[in-house]
Amino acid sequence: METIKTIEELIESYEKLPGIGPKTAERLAYATLSMSVEDRESFCNALQNSIHRVSKCPDCGTYFEDSCPICSNPNRDTSLLMVVSDSKDIISIEKSGSYNGLYFTLDGTLSPVKNRTPDSIGIPKLKEIVKSKGVHEIILALPTDLEGETTSLFIINSFAKYEDVSVTRLAHGIPIGTNLEYIDSLTLAQSIKGRVSTKGDKGNE
Amino acid sequence: METIKTIEELIESYEKLPGIGPKTAERLAYATLSMSVEDRESFCNALQNSIHRVSKCPDCGTYFEDSCPICSNPNRDTSLLMVVSDSKDIISIEKSGSYNGLYFTLDGTLSPVKNRTPDSIGIPKLKEIVKSKGVHEIILALPTDLEGETTSLFIINSFAKYEDVSVTRLAHGIPIGTNLEYIDSLTLAQSIKGRVSTKGDKGNE
Repeated sequence: METIKTIEELIESYEKLPGIGPKTAERLAYATLSMSVEDRESFCNALQNSIHRVSKCPDCGTYFEDSCPICSNPNRDTSLLMVVSDSKDIISIEKSGSYNGLYFTLDGTLSPVKNRTPDSIGIPKLKEIVKSKGVHEIILALPTDLEGETTSLFIINSFAKYEDVSVTRLAHGIPIGTNLEYIDSLTLAQSIKGRVSTKGDKGNE
Repeated sequence: METIKTIEELIESYEKLPGIGPKTAERLAYATLSMSVEDRESFCNALQNSIHRVSKCPDCGTYFEDSCPICSNPNRDTSLLMVVSDSKDIISIEKSGSYNGLYFTLDGTLSPVKNRTPDSIGIPKLKEIVKSKGVHEIILALPTDLEGETTSLFIINSFAKYEDVSVTRLAHGIPIGTNLEYIDSLTLAQSIKGRVSTKGDKGNE
């Protein structure tokens, strides 16, 4: 029995997604054939819209449909710039509702093995934007793996000589709602090192 | 920041696939935005073709583009009928190249919990086809989980009174290329129970 071209094409398309291997792609392709016609049509529409309607902000890397909701918002604090390695992270930060500055999305993290250099991930552009927007604080929100840490360190050193720009990074520590026994020792060490002083309310003594 | 409609639609589409949860769907949706325009267009084409070009054979459940490659092939042995629970399994069997009969795809396996009854998975139609095509052997190739075994047993009992129809099932045993130590005891027990007699070539003594 010869293979069916359309199914092969579906498998190939699914295989292009990250984390989807040949077996999973095959499973998803056959599952797609079992989807209703409406579902497949709306899937196709969403794909078409993703080509024609969604743009990526050249400044901050946020995806948008009309105009960049971050850069076009006059109420945002342009002296703060958060650096992320993936524009998906912007959504997570925005959902937390506790940040009102600008963003900059690197094109991944530094990796000599994967041929990702400071130039290719966009460090020169970061410097430009820091200058042109008058940023006073760069907040690093990069992954905590080896490559992310290397990138953080590189940015810290790159801005060391900028006197009016401070570089901070998100606090490491115990996630809210977690029991101490489930925390790895590295995180625990960081949370002890970065402990915060507290003050009781003296008026209620 | 409000959510982006197109991205939401992509996430919803991916979530409809089996085994894809909300987090994975979000990851895949953002990965889709990073795909090239050509890749997204060919993905969309494949989806459109899956609606307009691919059909499912009403008799055997094989997917095809022009005509069913199994049922329209006059060289296939119509006295053999293999019963599978998923049309994807037909591809696996065909790839092995060791079967030349017909197929019948059940609409899943029997499951009282999921409300899948003999009528809803297509047992009456199986009986019809066995009669109309003059099948002499039904080969069961159903999953070896509880629901699959129940379905196999149900079919065995359903055809017990058909004198000219025998029901067989695929052999259980040790997969080729596997070491004995990695085989679970149930499979090992089945392979001992179903051991096969061998004959040396006496002429070469």
